Amino acid sequence: MTEENDQVVLDEEHKDGDDAYSLQPKNVAAILYAVDIGDRERLVELMEPLHPADIADLLEQINAFDRMRLIKLYDKEFDGDILSELDESIREEVIHALHPAVLADAVRELESDDVVDLLEDLDQAQQEAILEVLDNQDRVAVEKSLTYPEYSAGRLMQREVVMAPEHWNVGEAIDYLRSTEGLPEQFYHIVLVDPKLRPIGNVALGRLMASRREILLRSLISDTFHVIPVTRDEGEVAYAFNQYHLISAPVVDENERLVGVITIDDAMAVLDEEHEEDILRLAGVGEESRLSDSVLETVRQRLPWLAVNLLTAVLASLVIAQFEGVIAQVVALAVLMPIVASMGGNAGTQSLTVAVRALATKDLTGSNVWRIIRREAAVGLVNGATFAVVMGALEFVWFGSVMLGVVIAAAMIINLLVAGLAGIAIPVILERLKVDPALASGTFVTTVTDVVGFFAFLGLASLVLL
Amino acid sequence: MTEENDQVVLDEEHKDGDDAYSLQPKNVAAILYAVDIGDRERLVELMEPLHPADIADLLEQINAFDRMRLIKLYDKEFDGDILSELDESIREEVIHALHPAVLADAVRELESDDVVDLLEDLDQAQQEAILEVLDNQDRVAVEKSLTYPEYSAGRLMQREVVMAPEHWNVGEAIDYLRSTEGLPEQFYHIVLVDPKLRPIGNVALGRLMASRREILLRSLISDTFHVIPVTRDEGEVAYAFNQYHLISAPVVDENERLVGVITIDDAMAVLDEEHEEDILRLAGVGEESRLSDSVLETVRQRLPWLAVNLLTAVLASLVIAQFEGVIAQVVALAVLMPIVASMGGNAGTQSLTVAVRALATKDLTGSNVWRIIRREAAVGLVNGATFAVVMGALEFVWFGSVMLGVVIAAAMIINLLVAGLAGIAIPVILERLKVDPALASGTFVTTVTDVVGFFAFLGLASLVLL
Repeated sequence: MTEENDQVVLDEEHKDGDDAYSLQPKNVAAILYAVDIGDRERLVELMEPLHPADIADLLEQINAFDRMRLIKLYDKEFDGDILSELDESIREEVIHALHPAVLADAVRELESDDVVDLLEDLDQAQQEAILEVLDNQDRVAVEKSLTYPEYSAGRLMQREVVMAPEHWNVGEAIDYLRSTEGLPEQFYHIVLVDPKLRPIGNVALGRLMASRREILLRSLISDTFHVIPVTRDEGEVAYAFNQYHLISAPVVDENERLVGVITIDDAMAVLDEEHEEDILRLAGVGEESRLSDSVLETVRQRLPWLAVNLLTAVLASLVIAQFEGVIAQVVALAVLMPIVASMGGNAGTQSLTVAVRALATKDLTGSNVWRIIRREAAVGLVNGATFAVVMGALEFVWFGSVMLGVVIAAAMIINLLVAGLAGIAIPVILERLKVDPALASGTFVTTVTDVVGFFAFLGLASLVLL
Repeated sequence: MTEENDQVVLDEEHKDGDDAYSLQPKNVAAILYAVDIGDRERLVELMEPLHPADIADLLEQINAFDRMRLIKLYDKEFDGDILSELDESIREEVIHALHPAVLADAVRELESDDVVDLLEDLDQAQQEAILEVLDNQDRVAVEKSLTYPEYSAGRLMQREVVMAPEHWNVGEAIDYLRSTEGLPEQFYHIVLVDPKLRPIGNVALGRLMASRREILLRSLISDTFHVIPVTRDEGEVAYAFNQYHLISAPVVDENERLVGVITIDDAMAVLDEEHEEDILRLAGVGEESRLSDSVLETVRQRLPWLAVNLLTAVLASLVIAQFEGVIAQVVALAVLMPIVASMGGNAGTQSLTVAVRALATKDLTGSNVWRIIRREAAVGLVNGATFAVVMGALEFVWFGSVMLGVVIAAAMIINLLVAGLAGIAIPVILERLKVDPALASGTFVTTVTDVVGFFAFLGLASLVLL
């Protein structure tokens, strides 16, 4: 079966080039047609080659009405992994739509860390309904995991760990593995532990298999080995996996005892989510924003950021209002002033994006922050001088005033310099104050560049032209 | 040794909380002091606990002068993996600084895929210098990889693959692994191949070890198995790893023959880079932008985007210029007009960021694009209506004109509706035209919202107030 499917995947890949991995619109159409005519057999046949992650994507892409009908028709074919892959925004809806018996079967198939992930976002009543269908051992494991803080290593880890005492040799380890029932489905290392159950090293399965039976495990441990405290933030865990190329890492409690293991696939998913949140925050969109959100939900997420933007825009307008007199006399000022503000806003956004990313990847630190601030100031001056010349000339061609050309050139230099400095300083200061720089930097920086841009341009104009 | 180091890592983690993984500024200071006084022994001692990725970060954070002195003093301790981890922007500089004999040793330690990664960005002369120090077999492998397109699976894969014929049983596979010299350092699956060397399934090492010798490998293959064509774009490869939770995947040539394998750690690094590029592109910063770039390099990357922004800002100014007459009569228009444009720009950026992300994660497709466009339009109307009321009232309090309040309210609704539509339509159209939406959407969308904002506000004002 798998073999046949793979061949299909391969062929499609060759045909469709870059788009091979995504759910194809023509498949979606065929599936929705099967739902329309209530053809269960055809539906199951069409869904068969899809990975649970693809089915989850499908459910996210179609509307709520089709979703409900599809779930009812698909019925007991519904796999637990689909629930794990589903976006939180529609997970509750799907859980409600499932027949209780189907839900119970689906949940029982899942590994304990996936059940934890599922439960986190449900309300109390739903949590209990799901916990009830688990067998005793799984329920205890899940409940224990839920005692760790949200977004911590404790929530991310799987509790099934393959470990061995540090004094064992290869033969003992292999015999142990062969005789143990219920090893985890996927594991890549054996964790060596001391008598107090503290992890002291990882042995890769590949090295184990390639070594003679009498070799000590201790002599085979990998160079790179990281131990993760159970309370560590999952974002930091993902960072460590990416930075140190970890494949799996043991998790320890406050007594440094081994309590679980995190594997790279879970870390990769966290890395992906963190990036998503960063991008959405930088744009002033709620980080929980999902494509499947309703209109009202979307409004609720975006309106607060627009309200903050309104405040800063009004602040900039108050600056303009101080110069109504000069604008009434020289209307060209009203025509040109948005250019100065806009260039400052863009240059500031460039600097702040670089700064926010560098803070997230720990590339911007106390060791180099002053050097980078100097660099941004220099870049602001060079860009400012360049566009000062361009805009000064453009103004002269357009309006024919030498003095106004000088004013806009000077304002441009001032605003791009300030933009460079604010773009780096504001994220750094926010980070020091423990405020997420991705969340708040944009508003502060564009407020600064708007206010400084209008004030410098109009202020210089009043001095020079009146 | 490793054991001792790990203990140190663990203790530091407990002490420093969230910051545990990054290179600590106090370590950097101590290292630079050792370089200052030329104390090689102390330098080596301080560098010893650092992972090559940390050393690379260190070299990126310090200035060029210190970097040079550190490399000279560190001399033959310099590890090949540091080169792999280094940012491209300073890799060439570091390679130049290394003594040729040290460079040769460093390169010889690397796996073939790391050497390929290293060579990609070097000029012809440097490439040849490095290829020369490799032994024959490695050189051939590296040269073969370099024939694949840049950013393709062929460049990303390692050529060392552990494979087995499909008819083998567990015992045969284990005996083969035990008797084979030079297995790859890390591998997690055995790839089953048919007689034509086409991959037909993966067997996880964990399952292999836990199974009896007479079990057929074919019965142990993993459910999820993806075959990757050698020419596939690395971004698509990373997407597949993340979507389908792959740990390793075989790579095939145009005849579907196995030529290499890609592992999840390399896919994770690609995912991280792609995200970085997306964020930098969205902000109009060259995607190659690095913190270690010089002032001139940074100017070179950012100036083109500012120039594009200048053009769009001038376009908006041309719109304003059409209404000089009405502005001269009602200066309040000049005060209020940036608010309408700014709100539109922000709302447009929100929509476009969601759209660009959803396109990148393949969540926005032909199946749901119309639904999302309708949603964005509805969100634009609701937000527009909200801020129309707020701004209309604010205008009345500020300037006392009912008509001007109506004008700004109407302009706000129009511009936020247009912002929502442009924010979704422009990225989708760019994607269809095979232009990277992250790169170009921002400019288009803010141009639209500026032009529409000024035109709607000033145009309505001329109709109503004159």
